Amino acid sequence: MKYIGSSIEAVQHIIELCLSYGVKKVVISPGSRNAPLIIGFANHPEIEDYVIVDERSAAYFALGLSQQSYQPVALICTSGSALLNYGPALSEAYYQKLPLIVLSADRPREMIDIDDSQTIRQENLFDNIVKHSCALPVMIAENQVEYKRKISFALSKSVSSPMGPVHINIPLKEPLYGKKEQDIGHQLNHIIENDTILTEQSLEYISNTINESNKIMIIMAMLPKNHNLEKLIKEISVSNKVIILSESVSRIYSDSYIANIDRVLASISESEESDFMPDLLISVGGPLISKKIKQFVRRNNLNTHFYVGEENRFVDTYQNLTKHIDINPYQFFEQLKDVFVQKSNSIFKNNWLRKAKISSCLHNKFTKSVPWSDFKVYDSIVKSVPPNYHIQVSNSSVIRYIQLFDWNRMINNYSNRGVSGIDGSSSTAIGAANATKLPSLLITGDISFMYDSNAYWNKYLPQNFKIIVVNNSGGSIFGFISDDLSKHELEEYFVAKHNMSVQNIAARYGISYVQVNSSDDIDSKLEEFFAVNDKPILLELLTDYEESNDVLKEYFKYIKTNYDD
Amino acid sequence: MKYIGSSIEAVQHIIELCLSYGVKKVVISPGSRNAPLIIGFANHPEIEDYVIVDERSAAYFALGLSQQSYQPVALICTSGSALLNYGPALSEAYYQKLPLIVLSADRPREMIDIDDSQTIRQENLFDNIVKHSCALPVMIAENQVEYKRKISFALSKSVSSPMGPVHINIPLKEPLYGKKEQDIGHQLNHIIENDTILTEQSLEYISNTINESNKIMIIMAMLPKNHNLEKLIKEISVSNKVIILSESVSRIYSDSYIANIDRVLASISESEESDFMPDLLISVGGPLISKKIKQFVRRNNLNTHFYVGEENRFVDTYQNLTKHIDINPYQFFEQLKDVFVQKSNSIFKNNWLRKAKISSCLHNKFTKSVPWSDFKVYDSIVKSVPPNYHIQVSNSSVIRYIQLFDWNRMINNYSNRGVSGIDGSSSTAIGAANATKLPSLLITGDISFMYDSNAYWNKYLPQNFKIIVVNNSGGSIFGFISDDLSKHELEEYFVAKHNMSVQNIAARYGISYVQVNSSDDIDSKLEEFFAVNDKPILLELLTDYEESNDVLKEYFKYIKTNYDD
Repeated sequence: MKYIGSSIEAVQHIIELCLSYGVKKVVISPGSRNAPLIIGFANHPEIEDYVIVDERSAAYFALGLSQQSYQPVALICTSGSALLNYGPALSEAYYQKLPLIVLSADRPREMIDIDDSQTIRQENLFDNIVKHSCALPVMIAENQVEYKRKISFALSKSVSSPMGPVHINIPLKEPLYGKKEQDIGHQLNHIIENDTILTEQSLEYISNTINESNKIMIIMAMLPKNHNLEKLIKEISVSNKVIILSESVSRIYSDSYIANIDRVLASISESEESDFMPDLLISVGGPLISKKIKQFVRRNNLNTHFYVGEENRFVDTYQNLTKHIDINPYQFFEQLKDVFVQKSNSIFKNNWLRKAKISSCLHNKFTKSVPWSDFKVYDSIVKSVPPNYHIQVSNSSVIRYIQLFDWNRMINNYSNRGVSGIDGSSSTAIGAANATKLPSLLITGDISFMYDSNAYWNKYLPQNFKIIVVNNSGGSIFGFISDDLSKHELEEYFVAKHNMSVQNIAARYGISYVQVNSSDDIDSKLEEFFAVNDKPILLELLTDYEESNDVLKEYFKYIKTNYDD
Repeated sequence: MKYIGSSIEAVQHIIELCLSYGVKKVVISPGSRNAPLIIGFANHPEIEDYVIVDERSAAYFALGLSQQSYQPVALICTSGSALLNYGPALSEAYYQKLPLIVLSADRPREMIDIDDSQTIRQENLFDNIVKHSCALPVMIAENQVEYKRKISFALSKSVSSPMGPVHINIPLKEPLYGKKEQDIGHQLNHIIENDTILTEQSLEYISNTINESNKIMIIMAMLPKNHNLEKLIKEISVSNKVIILSESVSRIYSDSYIANIDRVLASISESEESDFMPDLLISVGGPLISKKIKQFVRRNNLNTHFYVGEENRFVDTYQNLTKHIDINPYQFFEQLKDVFVQKSNSIFKNNWLRKAKISSCLHNKFTKSVPWSDFKVYDSIVKSVPPNYHIQVSNSSVIRYIQLFDWNRMINNYSNRGVSGIDGSSSTAIGAANATKLPSLLITGDISFMYDSNAYWNKYLPQNFKIIVVNNSGGSIFGFISDDLSKHELEEYFVAKHNMSVQNIAARYGISYVQVNSSDDIDSKLEEFFAVNDKPILLELLTDYEESNDVLKEYFKYIKTNYDD
């Protein structure tokens, strides 16, 4: 079905999203800048409109509509002081918890504060009295996804508990009065819902989705330790159609999970990718370590994505979020466990586990003959860490390397993955060591260690604190992520290349120091290192930055090529 | 003359300040929380009041009054959504540049967001559309000065160019309806004025004030280098009634100024203080190094204080600001030079210079016999720095020490005195050295140097960069400022006591290193140090923290006692 709406495409998106979040009534105050919104909403056959000139009165009128219908009601006004007249009713709606949705037309940003007529600073004008405000850009092709996500988030905030008014500021460019035939655009399939509790209705929808899915991927990223959740995931993982991808910082490990995401992905050829793509992705926990899984999911077609976790934003890592289930992951899986484990003939899990096995064999084969390099060093470290260590891993290349290896010996590992800074790994590790009874190990790169060397300038370094510095004379992360730079550019502006040992930092703070720079004695030195128990000790592993980069590239090529054969 | 006003004292202050800044008309919207304001303003014989129920209309009405009278007009409303109705007219006033002064009654902060009636978050509600907003506390005895200063600043913002609306949020406690006989309170003598240009009227007032003053003190604190200003100050300083106090970071030095404020103040006995207090203080530049001059001025009665400089706040360091002259200091002194240098029989300047001479003699005598200590070290440093060095001085004790000595050899000195952090002195010095052609010297304490040791982790250390680290094993500043702590408390929690040399930091970054720990060879080592020109070099001076503290105390006692004799 068609109708004659605004010719501005953004307006059509706004209308569809409003409909999808349950807006059926709109109160319009006449104006010029808001003409596209008026044309779109007023002509839409599924929207009931009211026209009230005085915006103050319009907003209180809308409040009454919402109060009695239990539905969100949109308010449309033009730019300038008009918007300020909504203030009194919005404050009332805020404390009465009613979902008023202010759609204020605005001029584009470049027209603000140049004394154009009817222009004030509308963005975030009502922050004291609305639940959420969002300042949209002018929509262009490049920002369409973000544009819609921002509107979605604002709308979902308004209608999720506790409900309340929100303000969406919409800059619109001339021509304002253009019309165009548009689809009615029923409720969208892909709006992002925000469940702060699992109502019967949403439980039913989620259960159905799980039932209908043959390929379910659950990605576990950074999480606080939770034995109950761990047990639940284990129980769910028996299902043939469920594969668990667990990152090291989730501290959830099993042979039947994919715990080395990057190396397994390396063994999946392009033509196979669709077999390994889930039709339902459930993501849990903080920011991801693996860039490759992000790229994998983004470049293939993801049907449905639930993000499960308490978060005051839409964590749409894969840019295709369907539903934000804003509750504790344990509660979610507990309620849905039985649905996950219903019988299924899916071969999805086995496909993944087969790849894991193959890539693991290739990994072990490659490792045997690997020369002295970062790769070699991490191989030795991961194999030598005694059980029951509390481990802190610095950011950048260190954590990515470790996830290539079988990190189950290092199950108790942590890393500052919230914003992935290199600036506080040592300080965090020492703080953490002061709050745990376990012996502590920090594994860090040279740059991160030097950056935070003042971390050791205090009295709190425990006797059983150990530090491994993998010193490859610079930030080797750029070997992981960039191919487009010249060697000079890379070393001068990115790698922070240097040729300093960290020995005198250790000396400065009275930390015992051991150095290794070849494969010959690394294993024996690691053994000695872990045998020390009565004083802080630092092991510096000196590797070559270029050699290390080459080995890493070779590794991924090896897994890819050998499996393809 | 008396009238019957509100019994709440704060209201009386608000009215007096409003009158002083030219408010003669007020538009009142009835309410309960604003009863004290209504009672006060409506009964005041010098205020013309209008009563309009609808706040939206009231605000536009006030806008009309102001537009035609060229005067500030106050708006008084009760708490809750009432205030939001001012929004539209305020946005209009903002862009029309009209001085509307919103006085919104509010509940005390503890009553917000507990679902009390007529309470919203009023503070900073209009930040997008007013020139300034100020959220007052409930007035009590302790915050009266701050309370009035905040109101003054808001009112001055409203009426100074470009004029505009301001919002003053006023929490009021019950009882609200009490009345009390009050003085009419004509225009206050001590309101702070804010001149963004020197009108004829304010020039006349300032000239008169200078003419009537017999004792004028000009304090020059941190300033950008300005030869013209320097010359002007020199010309003004010939006046018998003008004494210039110059801090090292003003980089303005003369034998006829007080350049060692703390040591000269030490020679002024309590009974003499009133002779040395100015009747007009003019302060120029950033935050002060000398705590003692602040205390001196604060504890005596300051009559008139002008702060001269472009600043978006009232810099009321001495808590008795009369006028903020919001223009460039050069412009100020240039226009008033002739007034300053008019003939005078004052002995004010000579009194100060006599003290300077005496304290200088005592200083030199004390210095001759001083043992190895921070004091001794700074004495040697200040005497040995070659001319034309660019000097960076770290915060805390270093800069305070240097100002005790004759720093004219170190005229080109800088320090991070904006917020006086110890955290970036090295980095700033290296950055500065990269932008000057002069050889550079950083003088720093041990803590500040260690804190910012990563400053040397780059390629930008010039060959002619020199570092002096005065290492007294901890933050000696606390010897300057605290007497109430036990030795254990002081060393454990404040001094950051350590026994580390900075030698291995120097080694780490390839900086040549020299160490001195006695008076015997300091002068020769300093000479050698300054003779090096082809590589960065660090001189570490190891002193004893306790001995240094004792010497400093002894020094001040020596000057005080010997002069009193």
